[in-house]
Amino acid sequence: MLEITFLGTGAAIPSKRRNHMGIALKFNGDIYLLDCGENIQRQFLYTNLSPMKIKAIFITHLHGDHILGIPGIIQSLSFMGRTQKLEIYGPKGIKEIVEMAKNFGYNCIEYEVEVKEIKKNKEVKILEEKDFCFYAYPTKHYIPSYAYIFKEIKKPRLDINKAKELGIKVGPDLKKLKEGIPVKNIHGETIFPEQVLLPPKRGICVAYSGDTLPIEDFALFLKNLDCSLLIHEATFDSSEKSLAEETYHSTVEDAYRIFKLSQAEKLILTHISARYDKEENFLIYKRDVERFNDNIEISEDLKKYEVRV
Amino acid sequence: MLEITFLGTGAAIPSKRRNHMGIALKFNGDIYLLDCGENIQRQFLYTNLSPMKIKAIFITHLHGDHILGIPGIIQSLSFMGRTQKLEIYGPKGIKEIVEMAKNFGYNCIEYEVEVKEIKKNKEVKILEEKDFCFYAYPTKHYIPSYAYIFKEIKKPRLDINKAKELGIKVGPDLKKLKEGIPVKNIHGETIFPEQVLLPPKRGICVAYSGDTLPIEDFALFLKNLDCSLLIHEATFDSSEKSLAEETYHSTVEDAYRIFKLSQAEKLILTHISARYDKEENFLIYKRDVERFNDNIEISEDLKKYEVRV
Repeated sequence: MLEITFLGTGAAIPSKRRNHMGIALKFNGDIYLLDCGENIQRQFLYTNLSPMKIKAIFITHLHGDHILGIPGIIQSLSFMGRTQKLEIYGPKGIKEIVEMAKNFGYNCIEYEVEVKEIKKNKEVKILEEKDFCFYAYPTKHYIPSYAYIFKEIKKPRLDINKAKELGIKVGPDLKKLKEGIPVKNIHGETIFPEQVLLPPKRGICVAYSGDTLPIEDFALFLKNLDCSLLIHEATFDSSEKSLAEETYHSTVEDAYRIFKLSQAEKLILTHISARYDKEENFLIYKRDVERFNDNIEISEDLKKYEVRV
Repeated sequence: MLEITFLGTGAAIPSKRRNHMGIALKFNGDIYLLDCGENIQRQFLYTNLSPMKIKAIFITHLHGDHILGIPGIIQSLSFMGRTQKLEIYGPKGIKEIVEMAKNFGYNCIEYEVEVKEIKKNKEVKILEEKDFCFYAYPTKHYIPSYAYIFKEIKKPRLDINKAKELGIKVGPDLKKLKEGIPVKNIHGETIFPEQVLLPPKRGICVAYSGDTLPIEDFALFLKNLDCSLLIHEATFDSSEKSLAEETYHSTVEDAYRIFKLSQAEKLILTHISARYDKEENFLIYKRDVERFNDNIEISEDLKKYEVRV
């Protein structure tokens, strides 16, 4: 199960309703933080998550509303006695940002902060663990920017009946086959993993667009990954198409188009302009979303989702 | 009238109840911001104050909880179309901090930010306007730090009856006398301002300690300024005297002692440790304050005060 908590869902200027961006993904007890706008450290206090559990931070791009929480998180974690390494991923320039964050005022950061600059201009696997990985996908904003995709890796399943049928002894040989190693059966014949393995179960796959114009190739990439949840920016309602294009952002309609192309099951809209903070303006946005009568939600600060497949 | 709004009242680590430090003083329509912890720009949204009206920011010292809101304020003000100059005062190192704040991520700051580093190790008038001024007073923290004092300047009042008695014609001569210039009376005799001026009315005077050990000389300085309101840090309750000394902070009792020495009329305690966020811990702090049975308040985020004399 992957637990997603929206710590901030606003755009360039924060609003009463929306903090600057930050999304916490919790998996196997560790937290992976997508973007880190100002005040994200305090937003954690209103959740059941501890910032001490952050293993890595993924920054989509170097605009203030996505990075100004980095100094506070880095400095407070040290204050709280962290010793575990923290990884920070981001586009070119993130190293300089983290260096400034560490030196912003008198400080002594007592743990290692490892920064990994992503430079590829196509999709790239940036982190790989035993049972999940993260991809970065270059997006279209007016400065270098990436979307991030969490993908759970499920091992192929063993068809035990088939293995028995083929004369495999129950025990270490089954483990070997599961790990992809051929073994001998009771008759001395070689049995290959392909003969006894079923395709792996579907893993969780969640994508976060960051700030971007809509990108059809991104949708196709997500389709190939069998993405179940797309978190896409929709800074503006659909009537503001030209403003969105001018500022390299997406509208509700743009995000919906990418969602349908990706064949994901659920769409959550985020990075919502402060102009929609007023109730009457928010209603315009909400009605725009409701037109599609589909599995779409508008993100809310501190709202939590549990993703299973 | 001076309007004071507490935007943040917490210490090193923010809490649910308390944002990092920030105090807005509004005078003649302009805002003077004392300290600028993370998220101060968003705290403004929950008040009737506009950050566009900030004329100057005064930073007590360069610890994260007092400065991490600077990048967000600077960047958002530009985004909101500011053209007016912003002044930032602070101890040595503030220039470098503001430079980093301006360059934290892709930005274009469209207005002038003038930084004034305070270097004196004794009290100094750092800003002087027609009807008020600000003093900086060096305090005792383990890095360079200053308290700031707002002082309203009242002009001497004219004793009109006395002036008439001395044969002064009603008109421009009265203005001259008020401005300190001697004039001739109807008999051709020279009349000096001292002969017709009454002492000025008392002006508003408010002091903010920043982070510091208690300083008796500071109290005497405030007494000489006829300070009416002292906002003093009291990070810990009085039972934590040794912890306070170790960390160069004050307890409730320390702050009270300085308050009584200063002969100010009201004391507001601030910069309160996150340990008092839990209701049962806060009660310890509250009872400690109530012991003194005096004009003391514990600061609260977003609480507003109107100061008149």
